[in-house]
Formats: sequence, structure tokens, C-alpha cells
Amino acid sequence: MTEVNRRITLAARPVGFPRVSDFQLAYRPLPSPEAGEVLLRTLYFSLDPGTRERMNASDAHGVALGELMPGAAVAVVVRSLNAGFRPGDVVEGMLGWQEYAAAPARELRRIDRDAAPVSAALGVLGAPGLTAFLGLLDLCDPRPGETVVVSAAAGAVGMLAGQIARLRGCRAVGIASSAERTAWLLEDLALDAVLNDQPAQDLDRALDEACPSGVDVYFDNVGGALSDAVLRRINPRSRIAVCGQLSQINLESPEKGPRFLGRLIAQQASIHGFLLAGFTARFGEARQQLAAWLAQGELKVFEEIALGIESAPQAFIGMLLGRSQGQQLVQLFDM
Amino acid sequence: MTEVNRRITLAARPVGFPRVSDFQLAYRPLPSPEAGEVLLRTLYFSLDPGTRERMNASDAHGVALGELMPGAAVAVVVRSLNAGFRPGDVVEGMLGWQEYAAAPARELRRIDRDAAPVSAALGVLGAPGLTAFLGLLDLCDPRPGETVVVSAAAGAVGMLAGQIARLRGCRAVGIASSAERTAWLLEDLALDAVLNDQPAQDLDRALDEACPSGVDVYFDNVGGALSDAVLRRINPRSRIAVCGQLSQINLESPEKGPRFLGRLIAQQASIHGFLLAGFTARFGEARQQLAAWLAQGELKVFEEIALGIESAPQAFIGMLLGRSQGQQLVQLFDM
Repeated sequence: MTEVNRRITLAARPVGFPRVSDFQLAYRPLPSPEAGEVLLRTLYFSLDPGTRERMNASDAHGVALGELMPGAAVAVVVRSLNAGFRPGDVVEGMLGWQEYAAAPARELRRIDRDAAPVSAALGVLGAPGLTAFLGLLDLCDPRPGETVVVSAAAGAVGMLAGQIARLRGCRAVGIASSAERTAWLLEDLALDAVLNDQPAQDLDRALDEACPSGVDVYFDNVGGALSDAVLRRINPRSRIAVCGQLSQINLESPEKGPRFLGRLIAQQASIHGFLLAGFTARFGEARQQLAAWLAQGELKVFEEIALGIESAPQAFIGMLLGRSQGQQLVQLFDM
Repeated sequence: MTEVNRRITLAARPVGFPRVSDFQLAYRPLPSPEAGEVLLRTLYFSLDPGTRERMNASDAHGVALGELMPGAAVAVVVRSLNAGFRPGDVVEGMLGWQEYAAAPARELRRIDRDAAPVSAALGVLGAPGLTAFLGLLDLCDPRPGETVVVSAAAGAVGMLAGQIARLRGCRAVGIASSAERTAWLLEDLALDAVLNDQPAQDLDRALDEACPSGVDVYFDNVGGALSDAVLRRINPRSRIAVCGQLSQINLESPEKGPRFLGRLIAQQASIHGFLLAGFTARFGEARQQLAAWLAQGELKVFEEIALGIESAPQAFIGMLLGRSQGQQLVQLFDM
């Protein structure tokens, strides 16, 4: 075991899209667990679009300059000062972008290594899976036959939201940003229709073709002009879950868009902002259903894996640029 | 009884704010009730902002050129070909801007003349009252101590929404467009705080002063820059009912505004478009509670009354310009 803990810290607040120079690879001594804590070696951590916003803020939710980049990780216990954990146990927690961490038991969730690949704890059985499940089902209650549109449908959350819509008997329509990814959504994930939102495409026409009966539910990860176009097509009593605004988080100055509150009146539609933290009471049931679907082969997942702590900044930027397919992970150590 | 039915029809589709020349005073023969119908003489009809949008549209919801202007009215039966109605009975229905109407029983609601002044059927016990009650309570569920902001708080719906918020134990904050009206809201309707949204006012500062703990519920009749400012102050888990967009309905071309979906995520907030037609199952209970509050003196109402069918176009335009206080009615005949 190396005596050094390598970690990625925030070197500068990004202006617009982050650059590699906004991050720093820092070397620290191995952390020392205190009484009740465990020393953990990271197997995988996940790169999440939501982290981009935390890079701007200096409030409690934000990342201070020089501090560790935050993120969910799966790790193995290498030393335990807690009677509940033994070396070799695998856990999930918000350990950040680093090779080692010391953490108390209350911040960790034990992973069953036999139930699914351990990386699933960061995807379908982690925050992305819970977001897709609860954002779609709890906030939007899609019913069989309804048209459900998912933006960033090839992303970590979107790939699951689209499939859950299909499993609910809906017409699942996915929006992604390359021909390769739309083909994957249509053929591998079996969505009912897909469309490409690259600028060269005629978005309105593509939406009309993909949603001949309008839009009943919109699971939005993107916002911006894409959401404007979807909102023009919402049906009476449609429900919209806003889980992310990928198109907005790297803008240097805020964007304006068409006002649409009048359309919400006319269609008796509702929009719900989604934060996973508001749904902790539902995690158990949601994770159980997701695990069952995964075990039955009803849900497919795709992981994009970068290797080594050094690869994290570039992989994060690539994900923000829409270059990742599925769940973007960084793999550090093997078990 | 005159042999002529005078009515206001749509002469031209307005561009921006309607002008008097967009309306026509038309003379028709007295309508003849058919079997099962009654002949009605209008006592009052109401002028509603929602009618402005129907003047644009040529779809099923819109008003065709040359056709009767739509609106709710209270009328007295003068001749009955229906066993359920006798001359002298008072009813409410969507009879339009005219002196006489023939209508079948299914389109009429009988009014108890002893329970409240008959004009209340167009206000606190009619669509405005139901909108305030159901939009605020069913969609937003305000809880004691929460801050509830109502825009167009001196209008037909807003004056009731603000008072209902107060009756629920909330901090009721009303926004109106003149010093006279804000004084009325504060002193007569006993709202907790008021502010004036005329352009000369510093809206952000006024909102900060009126809402020191932020905004938990927003009952929006106005939209535009006013709603932008309120949305900047929403609290976690805030609820917004959009019942009207007065600032937008007379624009010649659509307006853009700041995007705010990201803020909905951060605050786990929801926005609900409200149409009264979606709540028919709740009308009975809502009307019962509104009538009880009215009888107990808990709800105050204010009516602005224009006299004679000829006065309707100018009174309608004045209301759209924000010159009415409370419920704008046109009175035609006495009982």
C-alpha cells in the first residue's frame, strides 16, 4: 500500500466550461481513521454534472478553493476502528475524488458484493438510479400509453429514466446528442423513439415526429432551447420533473428564454424541481425495485470508465461536453 | 319589456391592448326559448381578464369575429319552458355580454337570493372565489406561518386569495399597482404586508421588506418581471400556483425572461398551472366554505360596477389596465 493519498482539489473557479487547470492533483499523507472510523481505499468514484454547480459556490453547498472535489465513491475497508466493519467490506459514501478516505460508519452504506457489480452502487443503485426512479415515478406518475420525453437520455440518469418509462408501458422518447447514442437508445435500450438535439437538427420537426400525440411527461436534465421546444408540445395535465439543467450550468452569463407560465395555465401542467435529498424516505423501496429490474435484465446500464485519479478532470470536462455515454466513472483500484 | 336584445360582439381581433373599436354594440331580436329552456334577463355580468385571451383565438375556446363576448352572468327568469324554473328565479351561467339570453337548465345554476347578494355568484361564490380558494388551498396547501405572496392582490381573484391566506394563518403579502389599493389591502382586507409594483418602485427592495423570511407560496395572476422577482426569493419546497398572466396577455409579441428552472431544482419548488375547469368536483365544498366565511364577515369583497351594456368595453379595457378595484361587474337591470 502506498503511503500517499492522491486527490483532486479545486484550483480555480471555472469561468464557463471548466478547464483542466481549474483542478489540481494534490498529494497528502494517508488519512488516519479515528475511533469508530474506517480507512477506505477507493475502487470507483462517479463524475456527476451536479458537481459543476458546486464549483461556483462558496456557500455551504459549494467547494472551497483548494478543497477536495466532492463525489460519491465505492471503496473497500482496509483498516477498521469500528466493530461493524471488517477489512474487505465494500461501502458507498460521499468520499470525493481521492484514493483513500477515513470516514465514520454513519456516512457509509454497506454494499452487497454478490447482488450486483460494486460500481452499480454509483449508478443504477445509487444517486442516478434513485433520481431517475423517484423523479419520474414519484413526481410525474407516468401512466401506460402516455408519452414520456427524457432529455440527456444517454446520460447516467437519463438512460435509466427512459427505460423506467418503457417498463411503465409509456411511449419512451429519448433525446441525445449524437447519432451513435440515439442508435444505442433505440436498439439496446429499446426506447420507442429517439431524436438528436445537435444544432444542425430540426428539433421541432424531430419532436413532432417522435411525439405525434404530444408530451405527457417530461423528465428534464438539460433545459434551455430544448426544453422550450418540449414545453410547446405539452398536453393537458402534463407533468415535468426538472432534475438537471446541463445546458445552463456552464454559461458565463445567464440566458433568457421565452416565458411559458401562460402555457402551464392553458394545459393545467405542473413543473417540479427535483433534489434527491428530499426523498430519503423512499430510497429503500426505490433501490429494491431497481435491483429487481437489474437482476431480471429489465434495466441495462452502460458505464464509461476512466482509469486513475489523474484522468478525472479531463473525464469530467468530457462528460459536461456530452462526450460520455451512460454512467461516467473513474476507476482507481481493483478489489 | 323591450323587444330588443342588446349585446356586445367582437368586431376586430385586438392588437396589444384592446380598443373600444374592437367591440360592437349589436341589436338582436329577443331570443325565443325552446322547450326545456328559459328566457333570462341579465342583472349583472362580470368582466374577467381571461376573456382577453379568448379574443385572440379562433379555436374552439376563442371568440369568432362578430360573435357574442363570453362571460358569466347572473340573470332572472322572465319566461320558463322548463318545469324546474319559474319567473323570478335567479340563476348564474355563462350567458355572455348581453341583456337577454335563452338557455337550457343544464347550463344554469340556481342562486339563493337570501344567502348573499346575487352579484356574489359572479365573485366570491363564483369563478373568482373558486379560483382563489382552489388555486391557493388545493394546489399550494399553505401552512400557518408561511409567507404567501399574491400578485394582482386588488383584483377579483387576488383580493380573495390574500384574505384566504390570512384566514389560514399565513403571512399574507399582496402586490397591487397604486397607493390607494395597497392601502385598501392593508387596512380593509388586513393583509400582513403590501407592496406597489408600479415601475417607479424598487420591487426587489419592497419584496425583501415584505418577505423577510422569503416566499413559501406564490399565487400568481401577473407573471413577467414581477414573477421573476418573486421567484428569486422562493424558499425550499415552495409552491407556486399560476392562475393568470396579466402582464403578458396584451403584449403584441411574446416577451423573454430569465430562465429559472435551475432555481426550482435548488429549492425543490413546484409550479402548477391552474384552470378552474379541472376542479369541478371540488366546487361544492369550496363554495360552502366561501359562503360561510362571507356570512361570518371573515371575507370582504369589493365590487366595481359599470352601468349599462354600453359601458362594458370601456370597463373591460380599464380592468386590463389595472384601473379596477376588486370584482369588475356590469349591471344591466334591477330585479
